[in-house]
Amino acid sequence: MEFTRNNRQLLSKIATNDRHGENSPYFDGWKAYDSNPYHPTHNPRGVIQMGLAENQLCFDLIEKWILENPDASICTAEGVDKFKDIAIFQDYHALKEFREGVAKLMGRVGGNRVTFDPNRIVTSGGATGANETVMFCLADPGDAFLVPSPYYAGFARDLGWRTGLDLVPVDCKSSDNFRITRAALEEAYEKAQRSNINVKGVIVANPSNPLGTVLDKETMRSLVSFVNDKNIHLVCDEIYAATTFSSPRFVSIAEIIQDMDCNRDLIHIVYSLSKDMGFPGFRVGIVYSFNDDVMNCARKMSSFGLVSSQTQFLLAAMLNDEEFVGNFLRESSKRLAKRHHAFTKGLERVGISSLKSNAGLFFWMDMRPLLKEQTVKAELELWRVIINKVKLNVSPGSSFQCSEPGWFRVCFANMDDQTVQVALERIREFVLQGKEEVDGSEKSKHWRKQNLRLSFSSSSRLYDEGLMSPAHMMSPHSPIPHSPLVRART
Amino acid sequence: MEFTRNNRQLLSKIATNDRHGENSPYFDGWKAYDSNPYHPTHNPRGVIQMGLAENQLCFDLIEKWILENPDASICTAEGVDKFKDIAIFQDYHALKEFREGVAKLMGRVGGNRVTFDPNRIVTSGGATGANETVMFCLADPGDAFLVPSPYYAGFARDLGWRTGLDLVPVDCKSSDNFRITRAALEEAYEKAQRSNINVKGVIVANPSNPLGTVLDKETMRSLVSFVNDKNIHLVCDEIYAATTFSSPRFVSIAEIIQDMDCNRDLIHIVYSLSKDMGFPGFRVGIVYSFNDDVMNCARKMSSFGLVSSQTQFLLAAMLNDEEFVGNFLRESSKRLAKRHHAFTKGLERVGISSLKSNAGLFFWMDMRPLLKEQTVKAELELWRVIINKVKLNVSPGSSFQCSEPGWFRVCFANMDDQTVQVALERIREFVLQGKEEVDGSEKSKHWRKQNLRLSFSSSSRLYDEGLMSPAHMMSPHSPIPHSPLVRART
Repeated sequence: MEFTRNNRQLLSKIATNDRHGENSPYFDGWKAYDSNPYHPTHNPRGVIQMGLAENQLCFDLIEKWILENPDASICTAEGVDKFKDIAIFQDYHALKEFREGVAKLMGRVGGNRVTFDPNRIVTSGGATGANETVMFCLADPGDAFLVPSPYYAGFARDLGWRTGLDLVPVDCKSSDNFRITRAALEEAYEKAQRSNINVKGVIVANPSNPLGTVLDKETMRSLVSFVNDKNIHLVCDEIYAATTFSSPRFVSIAEIIQDMDCNRDLIHIVYSLSKDMGFPGFRVGIVYSFNDDVMNCARKMSSFGLVSSQTQFLLAAMLNDEEFVGNFLRESSKRLAKRHHAFTKGLERVGISSLKSNAGLFFWMDMRPLLKEQTVKAELELWRVIINKVKLNVSPGSSFQCSEPGWFRVCFANMDDQTVQVALERIREFVLQGKEEVDGSEKSKHWRKQNLRLSFSSSSRLYDEGLMSPAHMMSPHSPIPHSPLVRART
Repeated sequence: MEFTRNNRQLLSKIATNDRHGENSPYFDGWKAYDSNPYHPTHNPRGVIQMGLAENQLCFDLIEKWILENPDASICTAEGVDKFKDIAIFQDYHALKEFREGVAKLMGRVGGNRVTFDPNRIVTSGGATGANETVMFCLADPGDAFLVPSPYYAGFARDLGWRTGLDLVPVDCKSSDNFRITRAALEEAYEKAQRSNINVKGVIVANPSNPLGTVLDKETMRSLVSFVNDKNIHLVCDEIYAATTFSSPRFVSIAEIIQDMDCNRDLIHIVYSLSKDMGFPGFRVGIVYSFNDDVMNCARKMSSFGLVSSQTQFLLAAMLNDEEFVGNFLRESSKRLAKRHHAFTKGLERVGISSLKSNAGLFFWMDMRPLLKEQTVKAELELWRVIINKVKLNVSPGSSFQCSEPGWFRVCFANMDDQTVQVALERIREFVLQGKEEVDGSEKSKHWRKQNLRLSFSSSSRLYDEGLMSPAHMMSPHSPIPHSPLVRART
């Protein structure tokens, strides 16, 4: 960032440091998309947005419910008599019905194996706000949290920018399917201690962003043991819980600690409706802490990011409609599974594999065979080709602090079926021709040939399998100017 | 706050310090109200809430507009086709139409003497979030802001709790109608410097909360000169701008600096729709900075407290309906003026005077003659009698850091006409009888007698003047459980 000399002295260190992280390729990719967005007819050579973890597959169900429930809105003839009471409602406890609806949803998403207490539901401005709130409660500037890598590119901003915390990556390896091991945790912890860094906790995303995998029970128990042994916190970011679309099922940390002898004061959950319901614009973030002091403090902090009471009122009615929620979650899983299958199988046919995953709005694409050399520099070179030539905004693994170059996060639920097909076609072409632009070596030519067989007529085959349809085309152009240079959360 | 020993070590300093300020009488008064809220029939001896700066007088106009504009909502047959695009909208620039509407409103409220640039409108979670955001941009932990006192009781939390800033009061005196003088500013600044405190700016509320007065142009020019001379910031909290109900008119700092030779990089405005429109539940806070770097940084920070896109969409339509907004603002001023007149005249008749004011949702009541002695202790003693015996939740001046004991903030726009009458009747009774419970001295008996004449049949007179009506009674009980132990902003 550039500042006048006067401004650099006038403003805060937060304003003038670069810990917001906006300069990472993760955000640059969005800018590339924003300056040249794909449209099937108006701009068919534009950049396809595959860097945005949006869940757009079930809005038909939501819209149907909206029309059937006019009393859920304060802006209808049926609801307007509530307008005043809702417009003036600014209690930082949030609407009781809203908390109850969220608690029920969290329970259902966890397979109803554990009950969530509505009185522990604390609201915040999206998961972005919820994650920052938890950090403000748990740690002081200069303290650190361990974060298994690869991890969400926005964590630096959400967890560390204004709180002054440091993030210490815990390296997870592809050879181990990026599993979080006790050995890796111990290593990161000890390394921090040797550098005199006070580690206050571990934060994990389950399901993982960017991996799209769920944590297994054994790993979770091991995490709980680890934080207990060290007397530090465990924050579980479960905002993708309901995006789990095939087995193994999602298991909440709340279920794990039910059967464990552990200090529950160390356990905290972050939840949201941005991914599971697909409402990032509504800014619903949730802090659910088993520690009463943290819950009370987070509740006071919610004054800085309360959810609009208009939105609370709407969602209270929606989330308490159990039949609707049940149907929505089932249908959403089904559609995510279908889309994931279509995308990953389409890539497999051109010889590109991905980490096996069963959750999330993205998968973790393995482009290591296409790298000139196994470095971040080579990864970013390839990424620039993908952005600028192939015109797909996928996100390079280095922006998720992945220790192995060559992995890319690909979002698959923010587009229509036809766009999926265009994206797959572009990748196929790239594999057939574009590869030489990166690297003309014999090795890559050999690799290309190996994969030619696989990529043969892949897109037409997808049609044959009924996995894609040119119908249900959704306009990527909102009627309202939409320039998401940086989103609150992805 | 009490913590287990383990939690005190486990949690952050922010979580375990008491800088949130929830223990002040300001918040205690709300608890008294919450545990025993007045209701005309169900609980006629309950506590009347006069500690809440809500603007409830014009919801009939809003509701009429809502019914006439179903396309302003994404939850109607007319608007549901926008549901998806709005639900996924999380751009931290906010909806263009929303920014335009807010900019127009700010211009209009300032008498259209200055134009606000929609591209400088940055959104935040209420004024609470906006004020914190500005501080995060301008100052580092340990730095200080000067704040003319008396000032809003929530400033300690909003400006200092998570940012680590200190507030240095600038004493304003009743003998000078609490005007902010250059001498008082210099004195506070020098005192801070002698204590090695780095002063980064001044924050003023215009109109003032709790005084209900607007800043005059001369004072504002003097403030601009002061911050220019010191090369520090001036933040103007203008969230009560449109509550100005009689002359002199409200003048925005944006109008003042238009004609001044000054460094505009030092000038920042905080705005909100919680007071001027009466929508605190919608959590619309605005940062408007003339400093590009601050604007850019605040925009990035808005990720932590974006306004729900559902609410942005509704308000965009409402605020861009210029005929409606014009009518609303005129009618709102008229009703506030009438209510203010009814209340202050009613008090005058029982011998209680107030600071002359022309804005805000409250006035500054002078109870100095009723104090046993001129101390904060005596003020709080009187306050406890008012809360517990008279059963009115007014807020003591000490919770606004007023340097002179005996002043109380009285909110007048969060109740119906009938409740006003009950409140005045209680005060009348208190002046006639209750005074002896505080102090049986000759002096107070004399004071009481003097005022008997004035208080004679005051309430019936108010009816005669048509200032109050038992009609339009609004239920203070929302159909939704409503327990505002601590509000986000008042």
